[in-house]
Amino acid sequence: MNTPFEPQFVDGLKHIFEQRIVFNRLLGLRIAEVAGDGVSGHLEMRPELVGHYSHQRLHGGVISAGLDAMGGLAVMAAIGARHMDEAVLQRLHRFGKLGTIDLRIDYLRPAIGERFELRAQVLRLGSRVASTRMEFLGADGKLLSTGAAAYIVS
Amino acid sequence: MNTPFEPQFVDGLKHIFEQRIVFNRLLGLRIAEVAGDGVSGHLEMRPELVGHYSHQRLHGGVISAGLDAMGGLAVMAAIGARHMDEAVLQRLHRFGKLGTIDLRIDYLRPAIGERFELRAQVLRLGSRVASTRMEFLGADGKLLSTGAAAYIVS
Amino acid sequence: MNTPFEPQFVDGLKHIFEQRIVFNRLLGLRIAEVAGDGVSGHLEMRPELVGHYSHQRLHGGVISAGLDAMGGLAVMAAIGARHMDEAVLQRLHRFGKLGTIDLRIDYLRPAIGERFELRAQVLRLGSRVASTRMEFLGADGKLLSTGAAAYIVS
Amino acid sequence: MNTPFEPQFVDGLKHIFEQRIVFNRLLGLRIAEVAGDGVSGHLEMRPELVGHYSHQRLHGGVISAGLDAMGGLAVMAAIGARHMDEAVLQRLHRFGKLGTIDLRIDYLRPAIGERFELRAQVLRLGSRVASTRMEFLGADGKLLSTGAAAYIVS
Repeated sequence: MNTPFEPQFVDGLKHIFEQRIVFNRLLGLRIAEVAGDGVSGHLEMRPELVGHYSHQRLHGGVISAGLDAMGGLAVMAAIGARHMDEAVLQRLHRFGKLGTIDLRIDYLRPAIGERFELRAQVLRLGSRVASTRMEFLGADGKLLSTGAAAYIVS
Repeated sequence: MNTPFEPQFVDGLKHIFEQRIVFNRLLGLRIAEVAGDGVSGHLEMRPELVGHYSHQRLHGGVISAGLDAMGGLAVMAAIGARHMDEAVLQRLHRFGKLGTIDLRIDYLRPAIGERFELRAQVLRLGSRVASTRMEFLGADGKLLSTGAAAYIVS
Repeated sequence: MNTPFEPQFVDGLKHIFEQRIVFNRLLGLRIAEVAGDGVSGHLEMRPELVGHYSHQRLHGGVISAGLDAMGGLAVMAAIGARHMDEAVLQRLHRFGKLGTIDLRIDYLRPAIGERFELRAQVLRLGSRVASTRMEFLGADGKLLSTGAAAYIVS
Repeated sequence: MNTPFEPQFVDGLKHIFEQRIVFNRLLGLRIAEVAGDGVSGHLEMRPELVGHYSHQRLHGGVISAGLDAMGGLAVMAAIGARHMDEAVLQRLHRFGKLGTIDLRIDYLRPAIGERFELRAQVLRLGSRVASTRMEFLGADGKLLSTGAAAYIVS
């Protein structure tokens, strides 16, 4: 499933994900890698993202929002890899139909640091539902939170 | 468990929740009611909170972050109600020790609108763990998302 | 949505649920009420269902299995209510296509007792996915566990 | 964390898990490996465990019950590894204090087959709460279901 995507597809995904999904931009979510079998990204700590005033801890909502978004991106990449016969724009257009059904986040350790990494992987891509697993890591690679989500893929 | 809180306690909770938890302020989360058996709040739609560019839909991460925060607030209120013998500041101080263990969000319907209501209720408050149930509603009272979470209470 | 079902439909559902789904029979799951807007049932404590040898506590797996099954039953009832124009057998046939996508269970209090009640309600029935909320109660009506699940309805 | 346990500790865990937790015995859950950093086990298909009469599919409740039990076992093993200074019986005694806080199961693919493998790993072991990740696989190693759970460790 590890198909190399065209640069236009990756650029298109990045533009939609980082810019047009305005809340992702507010979070500062950036895509690092996009492949059919998994995606990764990162975000930088900023004062607005603090959840715990006394410890400068990242707000749990930034983690849940970020992992939800990354899971959706992983599904998009897996769909993209499955439909390499379609034109780039047609594949990108599928993003608009994706919706999160539900999400679980486990907060393992406090997210303190300047930069965090996010990873997501599709465990199953069906014709109607996709299931993903996500990880939120510190700059040192320590696992801080994990997630699981289901998405509807029209 | 429906204890009437002192205005100072409610004001203190509001200040911590709406101002000092910076990301809550970014989301625009506002507390409406705080009682030992449940809390409610609201947030207004703003362009930065959009998750789906073509439908002006609220980003799922705003919902998960908001419901996580409201669940924590409900736990704080329940703890506050249980410790009415303590001074206000002492009770408020307990907020700093609260942490989300895990969270589940079910996205039922697209969150489109100008204003949303959030509600949370504690299902069980133990000495170490509290469990909550949360709801995210449209201005018309329609249920848009539900949540469940567990919190560690020191 | 509170449609009165034909006795044949209810009997058919009971037969499938209590007898043909063999593991439900092993658990001793019994249907009490079936309506388009919610279902209820019960199960009796038996020595084989014990999870904690020293406290005679019901195994958490009995609770998760029971709530998953009840959520599915609630979806079936909601589908049945939506398709009252179809013949009974045709509606019952839809049961075979139902599948659980994912499930969350919150264990609030130890399940100790001789009889337990289970309830489930559909929060949203879409054309492809249904979301439910479930409760597991003691004979005294005390809430012991809650659940949330998503089902694929083909 | 990969401490080799004494045979008495492993035998003791097996006895508690496979025999004294009666519902595990009913499911036919068997431990294969027990280490501080993860555990594995298996179960055989039997007619009583069928959930879907027409496809001879394993009941989802067997999967959720099995993964919950395996997550708990992984926590026990991690606790055991952390307390190697304690006598075997003292460590085994800790099992009685373990409780599941909540559980999420993702059903990825139908569980059809004669034998299934279960794996669990502790993502974080705190002084009060432990978080685990679990997998349910077919005999061919195919991932059929995944789980995440939180446990209270006294």
